[in-house]
Amino acid sequence: MTPDYSIINGAFVLKNEASILISDLSIQRGFGIFDYFRTINFKPVFLDDHLSRFYFSASEMFMEVGYNHDELEKLIQQLIETNNIPDSGIRITLTGGYSEDGYTPAKPNLLITQMPFTFNPGNFNKGIRLFTYQHQRQLPQVKTIDYLMAIRLQSFIKENHADDVLYYNENEICECPRSNFFIVTKKDEIITPSKNVLKGITRKKILGFPEFNVKESIIKPEDILNIKEAFISSTTKNILPVLMINGEKIGDGTPGMVTRKIYEHLFLLKEK
Amino acid sequence: MTPDYSIINGAFVLKNEASILISDLSIQRGFGIFDYFRTINFKPVFLDDHLSRFYFSASEMFMEVGYNHDELEKLIQQLIETNNIPDSGIRITLTGGYSEDGYTPAKPNLLITQMPFTFNPGNFNKGIRLFTYQHQRQLPQVKTIDYLMAIRLQSFIKENHADDVLYYNENEICECPRSNFFIVTKKDEIITPSKNVLKGITRKKILGFPEFNVKESIIKPEDILNIKEAFISSTTKNILPVLMINGEKIGDGTPGMVTRKIYEHLFLLKEK
Repeated sequence: MTPDYSIINGAFVLKNEASILISDLSIQRGFGIFDYFRTINFKPVFLDDHLSRFYFSASEMFMEVGYNHDELEKLIQQLIETNNIPDSGIRITLTGGYSEDGYTPAKPNLLITQMPFTFNPGNFNKGIRLFTYQHQRQLPQVKTIDYLMAIRLQSFIKENHADDVLYYNENEICECPRSNFFIVTKKDEIITPSKNVLKGITRKKILGFPEFNVKESIIKPEDILNIKEAFISSTTKNILPVLMINGEKIGDGTPGMVTRKIYEHLFLLKEK
Repeated sequence: MTPDYSIINGAFVLKNEASILISDLSIQRGFGIFDYFRTINFKPVFLDDHLSRFYFSASEMFMEVGYNHDELEKLIQQLIETNNIPDSGIRITLTGGYSEDGYTPAKPNLLITQMPFTFNPGNFNKGIRLFTYQHQRQLPQVKTIDYLMAIRLQSFIKENHADDVLYYNENEICECPRSNFFIVTKKDEIITPSKNVLKGITRKKILGFPEFNVKESIIKPEDILNIKEAFISSTTKNILPVLMINGEKIGDGTPGMVTRKIYEHLFLLKEK
């Protein structure tokens, strides 16, 4: 096994030595943004979408990336070649930088890390169990590093025999901490919340499928009692059927037909 | 000048070399808590209050500090002796630790840093100008590292010719990002918001002054239009008169009598 490298501000460093000073605003003030995409057989998947969102997030937080799109893509390519990991997840993080007073934003630090990751199609049939929790992510459309609530809720999730939480607020379903949420109505309409959510790249791809009737709208918590299917979407999970919410089965508690078709469609587009 | 040290997990490290691996959950997921207190002439101020709140914050986030109260106090004492800075701010931070998968909490990292700080009584007469902003801090009673919104709003503050924001939500005034908020009514009642705020140590001391009629209650944004005085409290600022909110003068736009008395009272208790 070759040693893994990370990139910090353009310099290659051994992963187990990759560090930043504790004056960084991510450590001091939880201030940073990131994005995450996969490589399949050394090829980044939907890279343009992810980089566009990364620059959008930076701009929303008034941060300078310090590298343009082409330079960033080149760094990523160099990391892929150096680490020689064909199937992986790559994370690009932009932190608030080394602040003199621990509060005023400084020149951001750019961190790029790679981890082996292979998609496991076997997870589809296992599905996922969700438990609703009232919370609204701050700045939901910006992919910030803020997962304070999600990390805190990990014991809550276990106690409730669930696999993840489903956030709702002001009587509207939003999203899971790391994935978007969809329902399939009894009329075979596929609906995902239109607002107060992160605009996931997988979500965007699904919304663009001309073969399906997918739309953005409002989902109320009580709507869940009356649906045929539900699923979540994310970069690592692709599509996972939601088999249970708050301990109640969705449909007959097995992956539904529409969810399976969406899954297969995405699989062909992405995993080949 | 002697070199400054920080303490990371019990070990003394030079401040300009104090770093943690980027796999830490503070950098990956904004997950951590902290507390901050001052030293005056080498003596920590209100240390027990700050350490109690630090352990409370850790417990609310299901984190193990790894050091008991006495051990932590001893480390702090050693840092004060080593750095030899009489008047300072000391920050103890507990981060989510080096997570294998970038999501599951690990053994926390404990960081202790010290910065020179001397209280400037001259700031009192300058006062502070606030601008209201709708936002509710998540987990307000826990002193987490989440200042995502506060850091982002720094340009907003400048654009509005203010010095800080005053958060409100659901038609109730809450707090500033790093200080508590008080009003003095025309009946000389001193009121600070009772809920959805961090329970500041200076706030606690003021609430305990038997000489004043201070109470916790609800303050609505429209109440501000009709007050005699307003002030904020914090560990570094002590008491600062609020001279302007949203561009409108409070009272005659100079520090009020009640605010000054509270300030003098606190000054005697704390700064000697």
